[in-house]
Amino acid sequence: MSKTKTSVPTTRLMIAASETDANLFWATKFLAPDPVIFIEHRKKRYLILNDLEVDRGKKEADVDKVLSYSEVEKKLLGKNGKRPQMSDVIGKVLNDLGAKEITVPATFPLSFAINLQKRKFKTVPKADPFYEERVLKTAQEKAAIKSALRHTSDAIQAAYSMLGESKIKGNRIYHGGEVLTSERLRQTINMHLMSKNCLGKHTIVAGGNQAVDPHCEGYGPLKPGETIVMDVFPRSMDSQYFADMTRTVVKGKANEKIKKMWHTVKEAQEGGIKRIRAGVNGQDVHQWIHEYFEARGYHTGRVDGRMQGFFHGTGHGLGLDIHEAPRVSKVGEILKAGTVVTVEPGLYYQGIGGVRIEDVVYVKKDCCEVLSKCPKILEIA
Amino acid sequence: MSKTKTSVPTTRLMIAASETDANLFWATKFLAPDPVIFIEHRKKRYLILNDLEVDRGKKEADVDKVLSYSEVEKKLLGKNGKRPQMSDVIGKVLNDLGAKEITVPATFPLSFAINLQKRKFKTVPKADPFYEERVLKTAQEKAAIKSALRHTSDAIQAAYSMLGESKIKGNRIYHGGEVLTSERLRQTINMHLMSKNCLGKHTIVAGGNQAVDPHCEGYGPLKPGETIVMDVFPRSMDSQYFADMTRTVVKGKANEKIKKMWHTVKEAQEGGIKRIRAGVNGQDVHQWIHEYFEARGYHTGRVDGRMQGFFHGTGHGLGLDIHEAPRVSKVGEILKAGTVVTVEPGLYYQGIGGVRIEDVVYVKKDCCEVLSKCPKILEIA
Repeated sequence: MSKTKTSVPTTRLMIAASETDANLFWATKFLAPDPVIFIEHRKKRYLILNDLEVDRGKKEADVDKVLSYSEVEKKLLGKNGKRPQMSDVIGKVLNDLGAKEITVPATFPLSFAINLQKRKFKTVPKADPFYEERVLKTAQEKAAIKSALRHTSDAIQAAYSMLGESKIKGNRIYHGGEVLTSERLRQTINMHLMSKNCLGKHTIVAGGNQAVDPHCEGYGPLKPGETIVMDVFPRSMDSQYFADMTRTVVKGKANEKIKKMWHTVKEAQEGGIKRIRAGVNGQDVHQWIHEYFEARGYHTGRVDGRMQGFFHGTGHGLGLDIHEAPRVSKVGEILKAGTVVTVEPGLYYQGIGGVRIEDVVYVKKDCCEVLSKCPKILEIA
Repeated sequence: MSKTKTSVPTTRLMIAASETDANLFWATKFLAPDPVIFIEHRKKRYLILNDLEVDRGKKEADVDKVLSYSEVEKKLLGKNGKRPQMSDVIGKVLNDLGAKEITVPATFPLSFAINLQKRKFKTVPKADPFYEERVLKTAQEKAAIKSALRHTSDAIQAAYSMLGESKIKGNRIYHGGEVLTSERLRQTINMHLMSKNCLGKHTIVAGGNQAVDPHCEGYGPLKPGETIVMDVFPRSMDSQYFADMTRTVVKGKANEKIKKMWHTVKEAQEGGIKRIRAGVNGQDVHQWIHEYFEARGYHTGRVDGRMQGFFHGTGHGLGLDIHEAPRVSKVGEILKAGTVVTVEPGLYYQGIGGVRIEDVVYVKKDCCEVLSKCPKILEIA
């Protein structure tokens, strides 16, 4: 994919809420909670906004022109009696620009594609990345991700402190006289993030076997001697960029099985990071980790009817989306200099628990730069 | 629309992340950060999940069957050498079920529609609401919204307290010796929300003219004697339901223009609420408020090149989406018993500022029940 020369489309169209659609936010720097219309034609960028957003758009959006939806609508109203549909308004603007064949994202809403087709426009979906350039992070974007990671590291260390202040009594952990639960530890992390204007959503704090479902958020009392996976991936409300970091700890003593597994994951993660640089295929990094695990006796597959071992990708691109290009997984993809990816191998077995360790790296010509700094600790006394 | 008898589709298909796609979450009760495949055929509901999610899905999802993506993929691998595409996997499941014509949401990704068409499936987009029943809230859903609103009310009252504790010095407001800004007041609100596991995202705290852009989040020092619009719309991470509430206050004394405008908005909002019951057209409620404002001299339109007056809808449905059906706006829509909508008129003028007051109501046969309770205060001494 990376070697294909792709021509830049003459006309692009997006209809989406930039709050959830990273391409639209990236192209406009305008944050809107409801769908807005974006057109790029011969390198000029237009936003069509309703009355509620049009003045804010003129101030905040980084586009060549903000058009008023209701003004375009009014021009069409003159022509016949009916209230124009959104596709009429879009069609009018496209016609005025002289656009005919329109490149849209793969996720472009089918209903609009059909309605535009009825009006003689051809919408051609473009596979991700919609903007090739979005994959390569600017210095400003890298700094934004690094800043979010710094807050994330502090939040994880606030959780370390809470665990350090806690006491073990029997099969429970107590903090401030109350049983320490996933929910409480998660709140400590999320509150710290919010104090830095970062939004921790579905922060994972999963103990023991719960973490064998890598997306289980975790619930109930945490137990001494069990692995606690903390996967923290907030979005900065200042920059809109994501962080993503995982650490795994044990309150009290880890048994031998946990120790071996934790160190194996740590070595695999460090080995993976060492192998990442421009030109490397993510698949090879993933495969190396997979083989590293196998060589140490950690097999992947279905055991007792459920997935165990290492059954997710090694990493993913990170930016305005929590998961974006490029992937570091079993699907082949060449890593380019300037991309930002996570490296997050994990091992999960019923009876031992889950271990995942994740950092974020910036891919360079001959190596990669680790953007996330946070101590890796197995046991917290 | 509400009188049309709609037949239930034989086969539905969604491909979306249920974290952001409310229809998918509503249909499955399974929260996933990345796209998953959902098929409903002859009232049986299926989720197709990758290895990372399949076991969690079996535990958490409220569907008839969870299928393993990789197992379906394996069956196809046997037939030819190439790795099957996602549309092959979906096609295989649809074929096994005997489905041919598939109803999809209006937002269904165009690229999948094209790929499924190549495999002889016809995807027909259905206009919102994708599930008619989602508009009508169950007792459990109503309770979830009410609970989120309670936390929102407490968060707004925490902001009232912060303003009450603050001192006016000249043209600034001070709290704890520091200038009180939109950012600080917003953080007080968001931190309170987070302590209740509610996610305040883009909480609006906008002073004076900033609020004339109703979606401006607000920034910088707040000033005594100016309107402060606080629009708080968190999502509960426990239930996934949204709250939405707005209050407008002044620190210190409000001038006569602000007083008149604030009371006019308050009366319009109360009048709007009084008019809402099953069978009423939302358009009529909106029009009544519009005329109420006009009669008191508050005109809507473009002044000095920007929108002023009352230039957004009166309200919107609220649930798993912050904005969902039905609307209370210039577009006609009959309100049904069991729907939940906001009532949030506002007036915005350069030089006076913005005033918006918003509550959430549950539509009943002969009236509506206000679900949000929070004092409406103009001046905070």
